[in-house]
Amino acid sequence: YNLGFSMTVLLKTKGDHFLYDQVSIYISKLIDQGTLKPGDKVPSLRKLSKQLKVSISTVNQAYLSLEEQGVLKAKPQSGFYVSAAVSTEVALPKRTNTCCAPRKVKFGDLFEEVFAMANDTKIIPFGAAKPAMELLPVKGLIRATKRIIAHRPDACMDYSFPPGHKRLREQIALQYTKQGLLVAPDEIVITSGATEALAISLCAVASRGDVIAVESPTYFAVLKLIERLGMLALEIDTDPETGIVMESLEDALETMNVKAILVVPNFSNPMGSLMPDENKKRMIELVEEYNVPVIEDDVFGELYFGNKRPESIKKFGSSNKVLHCSSFSKTLAPGYRVGWIVAGESYNKVEELKQTLYSATASITQLSVAEYLASGEYDRHLVRLRKAYRQQIEKGRFMIANAFPDDTRISNPQGGFVLWVQLARGTNCLDVFNMAGSKGIGITPGMLFSATRKFKNFIRINCGYPWTPENEQAIDDLADIVKELQSS
Amino acid sequence: YNLGFSMTVLLKTKGDHFLYDQVSIYISKLIDQGTLKPGDKVPSLRKLSKQLKVSISTVNQAYLSLEEQGVLKAKPQSGFYVSAAVSTEVALPKRTNTCCAPRKVKFGDLFEEVFAMANDTKIIPFGAAKPAMELLPVKGLIRATKRIIAHRPDACMDYSFPPGHKRLREQIALQYTKQGLLVAPDEIVITSGATEALAISLCAVASRGDVIAVESPTYFAVLKLIERLGMLALEIDTDPETGIVMESLEDALETMNVKAILVVPNFSNPMGSLMPDENKKRMIELVEEYNVPVIEDDVFGELYFGNKRPESIKKFGSSNKVLHCSSFSKTLAPGYRVGWIVAGESYNKVEELKQTLYSATASITQLSVAEYLASGEYDRHLVRLRKAYRQQIEKGRFMIANAFPDDTRISNPQGGFVLWVQLARGTNCLDVFNMAGSKGIGITPGMLFSATRKFKNFIRINCGYPWTPENEQAIDDLADIVKELQSS
Repeated sequence: YNLGFSMTVLLKTKGDHFLYDQVSIYISKLIDQGTLKPGDKVPSLRKLSKQLKVSISTVNQAYLSLEEQGVLKAKPQSGFYVSAAVSTEVALPKRTNTCCAPRKVKFGDLFEEVFAMANDTKIIPFGAAKPAMELLPVKGLIRATKRIIAHRPDACMDYSFPPGHKRLREQIALQYTKQGLLVAPDEIVITSGATEALAISLCAVASRGDVIAVESPTYFAVLKLIERLGMLALEIDTDPETGIVMESLEDALETMNVKAILVVPNFSNPMGSLMPDENKKRMIELVEEYNVPVIEDDVFGELYFGNKRPESIKKFGSSNKVLHCSSFSKTLAPGYRVGWIVAGESYNKVEELKQTLYSATASITQLSVAEYLASGEYDRHLVRLRKAYRQQIEKGRFMIANAFPDDTRISNPQGGFVLWVQLARGTNCLDVFNMAGSKGIGITPGMLFSATRKFKNFIRINCGYPWTPENEQAIDDLADIVKELQSS
Repeated sequence: YNLGFSMTVLLKTKGDHFLYDQVSIYISKLIDQGTLKPGDKVPSLRKLSKQLKVSISTVNQAYLSLEEQGVLKAKPQSGFYVSAAVSTEVALPKRTNTCCAPRKVKFGDLFEEVFAMANDTKIIPFGAAKPAMELLPVKGLIRATKRIIAHRPDACMDYSFPPGHKRLREQIALQYTKQGLLVAPDEIVITSGATEALAISLCAVASRGDVIAVESPTYFAVLKLIERLGMLALEIDTDPETGIVMESLEDALETMNVKAILVVPNFSNPMGSLMPDENKKRMIELVEEYNVPVIEDDVFGELYFGNKRPESIKKFGSSNKVLHCSSFSKTLAPGYRVGWIVAGESYNKVEELKQTLYSATASITQLSVAEYLASGEYDRHLVRLRKAYRQQIEKGRFMIANAFPDDTRISNPQGGFVLWVQLARGTNCLDVFNMAGSKGIGITPGMLFSATRKFKNFIRINCGYPWTPENEQAIDDLADIVKELQSS
């Protein structure tokens, strides 16, 4: 586990201030480092309680949560043991090989099928990257919406032409300040979600026929966007842990006419990789050196599993060439469709494109989100949400590792809520998709994540939903499908 | 006045069933036909009450409403007289001349300036084509929204991927049925307003470099869209009363490679022209003959001043080549951003484009509108709204006719809520725009309504707001500006 925070810091904290959550991370870390091995008995409640200076019940809660995640196993009258197969033993998917030519993106109906299944509530939701509603602050947001329609009914109904409601832009600017980034409300253009933000950003900095450097694998909606806009996707090899490979990106900038870079530095979709700060810094240098804008898709940035929010590329230089895009779709309400762009020197172009091609964003959702952010509930909600996603991801990894064939590789995301699963060579993700679909289980076939269709033996599993016996069973069913395919 | 209904029908109705509104239309019609001339005394309350078999108070209400519109003038102790200058005396703007070559659209910042002023509540709202909030069913829609968030909070927050919420598509299908058009819910794709619907439709049937036939003048946001999509606008001459000139359109189809037609058959923006049924029928024939799809923008269709909703082009044939686009922005809530497309044979393409380029539309607004439509309040609201817009347009015409120089021509829209005003040749609409802006009055310069900038001496006046003394004063101020410009 690279949990992104130092053990020293953890151990330095005094008194009973540890949360059971921190204790469980600590134990995970010990397993991860090999200090505790599969089958080992973990320290007794009393012993760890004394060692970490926390109450016995805190340790107990931590152990129970690790048991729930499948990391520990309780033996009656004996204590807790490290489970036989812990997720950390699973190999990561392999780093992709550079694809040397920009490609025209071309998809069939697969894309629509994946989304159609996402609309169907009867399907097991491993397909679209979607959070479960029960994890989102539905009550708090509904309260905010009620307040807004009670106090500003006219504003809810009336147009709010670009750049969008000032109150929301002010609240988003405040969120940036919490990250240590100074962004003025006037630098922000509100969009209807992040997909629109990315589409507008691409149109602002590139035209038909232009080459866009992207990660490989890349979120398929981004590839579809590039296809639709008639641009070319240049897939740069990407490390499952550290994201886009800077040397490969530099090679591409050196040898090809790259018009823009589009990356998800914080928990890329589907791999969940996290660009280290030095790579982000280098990215800003490249942007300046090659005079190429970078579109930064940061929708997962708040969903970190470590102890601090990863930085935005924007943080590492004064470049005006970063277009920072994000939304509240993964943290607050997918259906509210509220996103934004901080476009730097492209601000005017972005505002004009938003007006011309997309017109206004709904007012009631803008004002509701602003009201919710102003209530101060957002930060507390994010703390809960991060924890839930982390536990769901950990349990998902554990279950897949246990149920799937031994040569399965699984990503180890450091944030977000999707897993990237590499099956044995020759296993066709489309067969898995179709067979799973016929059993009422949604997954996303890996092929969608590249214009070259190279991820044929990969699938993406959404872990945005709390695990239920039904969903756990579906993992076993998926494993059976994979085994059946591999034996035929 | 072509009020679109027959006097016979009106007179056949028995008893006291006439609304004062019908009585006022009747008197307007008499003035229009010349039966009552400027300065004439209109029938006494008692006489007309007897003649139409309605109560005296109904007639009185009708006369007061006509006085309020400036059509009648009350003389103390004497009765009501036809005003000296009734709006019907004003000449219409001239029909445009065909522009023979498709044009690349190119605008400066004018477009953004017009929208920026529309966001500013301190500006007199003659600029953007925007209804006043007080005319919209804010309370009813808020009630619907409250019900929806109480009963389906999760659905409000969750994604609703294209084609959009089934409940809303069912309600829209029902609305079509009321027009005598059979449209299945599954033929409808929900969009975030009509601008998005038009953008998606254009992308579905045409590509970069393709020629799109449009009315002249055309709503500037459509020209901007065409510009952005790299298509060419072919402006076809358009009659202020009957809309796009069919012979000119046919010529264009015959001699040029027109890829699609985009028209507003019902109350075009800015002229308010209404295509007669025979032209709509001919349009369908041309569509079939030349195998060219037609994008029908019907956002103003419900806002008719006559006694029946004008037909959709779609009604006049079984052609699958009509893409019927509309929204609730002009009738219900501009800020809710709910529109739709019935795309015929382009359905799959449209759904795919909606998903790829625009992603989902907000769920809470879709469900609120569905709930409001299901409440049955919509039809009653539309009756009130049509009347308000008609009265505002009539009063606007009357005031402009009285205040502006004699050679001013004014459109006579048969629906909608904007007026198209032709000033004397040489009067520059940009000067009017700038001088009006400096006095806190918004208008839309005519130049924006053509890629050739030919409407230099035109302005568009939004009459979507009830007349207030302040707004009436603004018309006088505008007239002074025009006079000052014309004398310099």
